[in-house]
Amino acid sequence: MIAIDWGTSSFRAYWLHADGHVLEKRSAPLGILNVEQGKFADALESQVGDWLIAGATPVLMSGMIGSRQGWVEAPYAGCPAGAKEIAAGMREVSWARHRAWIVPGLSTRDSSGTPDVMRGEETQIIGALDRLPSTSSWVCLPGTHSKWAEVRDGKVLRFSTHMTGEVFALMKAHSILGRMMSDAPTDSAWFEAGVRRAQDSGGLLHHLFGVRAKGLFGQIPNESAASYLSGILIGDELTSIGNVQGSVYLLGDPSLVGLYQRALESLARTAVVLDSDSAVRGLFTLAQHLPRS
Amino acid sequence: MIAIDWGTSSFRAYWLHADGHVLEKRSAPLGILNVEQGKFADALESQVGDWLIAGATPVLMSGMIGSRQGWVEAPYAGCPAGAKEIAAGMREVSWARHRAWIVPGLSTRDSSGTPDVMRGEETQIIGALDRLPSTSSWVCLPGTHSKWAEVRDGKVLRFSTHMTGEVFALMKAHSILGRMMSDAPTDSAWFEAGVRRAQDSGGLLHHLFGVRAKGLFGQIPNESAASYLSGILIGDELTSIGNVQGSVYLLGDPSLVGLYQRALESLARTAVVLDSDSAVRGLFTLAQHLPRS
Repeated sequence: MIAIDWGTSSFRAYWLHADGHVLEKRSAPLGILNVEQGKFADALESQVGDWLIAGATPVLMSGMIGSRQGWVEAPYAGCPAGAKEIAAGMREVSWARHRAWIVPGLSTRDSSGTPDVMRGEETQIIGALDRLPSTSSWVCLPGTHSKWAEVRDGKVLRFSTHMTGEVFALMKAHSILGRMMSDAPTDSAWFEAGVRRAQDSGGLLHHLFGVRAKGLFGQIPNESAASYLSGILIGDELTSIGNVQGSVYLLGDPSLVGLYQRALESLARTAVVLDSDSAVRGLFTLAQHLPRS
Repeated sequence: MIAIDWGTSSFRAYWLHADGHVLEKRSAPLGILNVEQGKFADALESQVGDWLIAGATPVLMSGMIGSRQGWVEAPYAGCPAGAKEIAAGMREVSWARHRAWIVPGLSTRDSSGTPDVMRGEETQIIGALDRLPSTSSWVCLPGTHSKWAEVRDGKVLRFSTHMTGEVFALMKAHSILGRMMSDAPTDSAWFEAGVRRAQDSGGLLHHLFGVRAKGLFGQIPNESAASYLSGILIGDELTSIGNVQGSVYLLGDPSLVGLYQRALESLARTAVVLDSDSAVRGLFTLAQHLPRS
């Protein structure tokens, strides 16, 4: 089969053997926003046309390719949902002599009725199921929009999204805080100080201003301010996830996962780091649920 | 006397009679960032040179003119501080045959030792003292960086800053939320829905993403999304100010004060709106504490 993780800014393709092991992989900065005029079939053929000609099938795709701005919108499947429910929501696209399946995202609602969504992360979670206990557990996927999902018996029960990564990037690029920041590797001590600061009363909007106030009084070096800000934001996210029991399973970009692991451990929480290649494994699992045709 | 409120982006000057009433006022978009090469004396003379020639004296200035980027840095006075303590921290500048006094800002520290600062708002608070009870009361000055100050017996005991206005502007201009927003007058119902949403668990970073998720499901009109976002941010600020007793005294820009009043009242809190011209009254009060020379 061909497994494709097709996001907003990147394209990653894997040619898999029938037993699931990766025969070949390719990636390109060909996110859906970089595909001209909706020519997704052309873009796909340009990347893996030789695999298609060689007869690799089926083709499954997850990520923003199934969004309103993608090839075809695959409507969100509702929680609770496991591999079977997600696979049942796949949408087929066909062109020339080929066809492919697009994996839907997931939606949930909290007790106030406010909706939440994910697209792409559901496939990563499916790919990590064999590493999770069957009892209720929490999976965190850090990112521009971090996801926290409660998973039990192979199903995502509910989840929440946090704009942690996007707010960090905005504050660094455009706010008064960014003016005092110089680029530097993560300063662990200041990152952890930020995580601790987020546990104080006062609220995030106040703690953000504290970065500037500390700078005015020479209490923080410019090259550590971004690490402190990052700690405040990630620490605030961890504080907001109040009712999480047991270990937190981390999934995704290794450098971000490393920061979350450090933040969790500094709060005496247990973090378990899962593989970062779970999207391809999730697509392989979902392919087992394809309708027979 | 001449009272000048000189901020980052604006210049406001008042010629006052000895009894405190305003004889004439002028304003210009001549904030300290628009003054070329530190020529503050020239800028001042260009605006109120005729008042200086007429012998109006003393000249008092508050706001960012006393910051590191201003005419002379007037170091922050520490809390608790009233008119006497603030006046004691004024710095004198002189040029040609003239001189003027620059009012210092205030600093405070919370229980964790994190500093906080204000510059300009201390003068507004001094100007509003005669409208406040002598018992402990809370004054809120909404803005790019909102200030909450506890005032008792004519002194600012402590305060905190919240980046509410700046985060709102950043999210609207640069985030994924901004893309769904169209300009429109404030939608009161959606603003109050945002204030209520901020009282739910989940945290600000999660509630921000809810604006987008509601949009994806057609649960909020594009022209109301900015009002909902504003409600979430102001509501979060109000929630963070946990231990405030009694009425909240609002001071500053009338349209922002109106939003905060609506938010407070929707949470069954009492808001008292004070005059918006308190800076000039504060400068008049501080002038009474000038050293005799």
